[in-house]
Amino acid sequence: MIIDCHGHYTTAPAGLQKFRDQQVARLDDPTLPMPQLARIGDDEIRDSIENHQLKLQKERGADLTVFSPRASAMGHHIGDEATSQAWSRACNDLIHRVVALYPDNFVGVCQLPQSPGVPIAGSVAELERCVRELGFIGCNLNPDPSGGHWTTPPLPDRYWYPIYEKMVELDVPAMIHVSASCNPSFHATGAHYLNADTTAFMQFIEGDLFKDFPTLRFIIPHGGGAVPYHWGRYRGLADMLKRPQLKQHVMRNVVFDTCVYHQPGIDLLVKVIDLDNILFGSEMIGAVRGIDPETGFNFDDTKRYIDALSLSSQDKRRIFESNARRVFPRLDALLKQKAL
Amino acid sequence: MIIDCHGHYTTAPAGLQKFRDQQVARLDDPTLPMPQLARIGDDEIRDSIENHQLKLQKERGADLTVFSPRASAMGHHIGDEATSQAWSRACNDLIHRVVALYPDNFVGVCQLPQSPGVPIAGSVAELERCVRELGFIGCNLNPDPSGGHWTTPPLPDRYWYPIYEKMVELDVPAMIHVSASCNPSFHATGAHYLNADTTAFMQFIEGDLFKDFPTLRFIIPHGGGAVPYHWGRYRGLADMLKRPQLKQHVMRNVVFDTCVYHQPGIDLLVKVIDLDNILFGSEMIGAVRGIDPETGFNFDDTKRYIDALSLSSQDKRRIFESNARRVFPRLDALLKQKAL
Repeated sequence: MIIDCHGHYTTAPAGLQKFRDQQVARLDDPTLPMPQLARIGDDEIRDSIENHQLKLQKERGADLTVFSPRASAMGHHIGDEATSQAWSRACNDLIHRVVALYPDNFVGVCQLPQSPGVPIAGSVAELERCVRELGFIGCNLNPDPSGGHWTTPPLPDRYWYPIYEKMVELDVPAMIHVSASCNPSFHATGAHYLNADTTAFMQFIEGDLFKDFPTLRFIIPHGGGAVPYHWGRYRGLADMLKRPQLKQHVMRNVVFDTCVYHQPGIDLLVKVIDLDNILFGSEMIGAVRGIDPETGFNFDDTKRYIDALSLSSQDKRRIFESNARRVFPRLDALLKQKAL
Repeated sequence: MIIDCHGHYTTAPAGLQKFRDQQVARLDDPTLPMPQLARIGDDEIRDSIENHQLKLQKERGADLTVFSPRASAMGHHIGDEATSQAWSRACNDLIHRVVALYPDNFVGVCQLPQSPGVPIAGSVAELERCVRELGFIGCNLNPDPSGGHWTTPPLPDRYWYPIYEKMVELDVPAMIHVSASCNPSFHATGAHYLNADTTAFMQFIEGDLFKDFPTLRFIIPHGGGAVPYHWGRYRGLADMLKRPQLKQHVMRNVVFDTCVYHQPGIDLLVKVIDLDNILFGSEMIGAVRGIDPETGFNFDDTKRYIDALSLSSQDKRRIFESNARRVFPRLDALLKQKAL
């Protein structure tokens, strides 16, 4: 089976955004009433999914999408922790409804109610709720809740330990994923996302996080940012900084997805990164929605690039399925319940 | 001939750093005397060059290095504009002395006295001095003089226009190059450098800078950061943002160097980026100084990776020489004076 480890609900019904708009408006004018998410009908959800994510999933030949709220809309820099709490619950609950309607096609990953300058401990309860009550299998962790100002300590810092402890306890991984950028230097999907991927990887090299959490697992999306292209640089830097080899030091705990939107990029990824560290992902429907005039197919139809690799079907299965089942044990358990 | 477009004087005599230390100490204690750069003898310079940069240049088979002050030491975030002025002059004057001693092996590129929060106009005079009086052929432009806080407007902003006007007038390019990071999120050579390369490229896509300055030229170092690996993403984003095709919109004015420290990375670079947009560079002696255990050669011996490409000797010459002569017209003129 083919598991897409990276999908966002970018096509959610308009009611969700309306709630967010009201929430943001109330930040400017606290006399406004506390907004309530208006009822979203199952039909609205079906429309938004069947005409978009599910349609493309079927057309492109994937079976199951690991589905999370729209990353660029997480907006952890907006408002305070209470704002993020209410917004995250609304977004995660909607993912839960998608999964309930299409349990064979989607499985949930949650957004966390992070907020800059407050302890990460505030996100632990929402992770626990989503995993234990809603059946989610992982979370998206934002290494920069400030939205482009990078004011939070690096990922190996003890600041983050409460969420790592809960991730280990629940046996769920996190995808490292920033949200929108409020720093005009950084275009969100063209700079901030890739920079965050690159930055997180280097933070893992500098730190010793996986000594404290040997079973902690992260997915670095967008093909690992700049890392595979600069794999020699990272091997050399690890050496210069007297860190252990990357294979032992980082790559037991970190995988990259395949959200790289052209064949030569995927070719490089598969050439330099161990196949066990690559999960199929498309980020669909996400950052880049058009058709590549050079191929006639969508840029983010990343399955085509994997299909085109000269790998054995067994090796492709590692990328498409077995690595995802290893990184997401709760997904593996769900599939086994269905005898898949 | 083989021109290395990216070399830094990372081995400068200790007197230079002593001057900097005194300068920084005086920021903390303004009662200290204004430091003076102690005399550095020609022998000290010869030692520092002949045992390092020149030795490796000869061993590895390059002919000429485009040489600039140590990038990580520019430290534009330290002190104010006057601090940067004095420090830049000292660094640039030392580059000039290296070039005077080894005019066949080195040609100068200057550091600019940037400082966060002040107009870029303050850097114009130093660029003019270095080009007109010292015979330099380009400059390093720091898109983030704050050192990792990214508080300066994006590169297409009019903030930067005074330096662009001078670059056009002098017909010199700039290498986009950040310095040390004072943001603990960003390791300098493992994250900040590559992020800046990626960020600058996306800023060029978002803006219309080259409409106003059709002859302005930039080198984005470190193989263009994450850009070539994500070339499909950038083509797709340009399309989604209704920008012209990258070939017309950015790539008439931007080239990437070959500071990518493994063969698969260079293979990708040459596959996706037009050969006219690639300049040979090594960043030597720089970020990564060790030997790659997989090859037995230095990571930053990037000439080997180009040599190994299955390109015609004419195409390799574009990367090694002719593109550099096009991007640096003042270098071309210098070489022609020598009948090279």
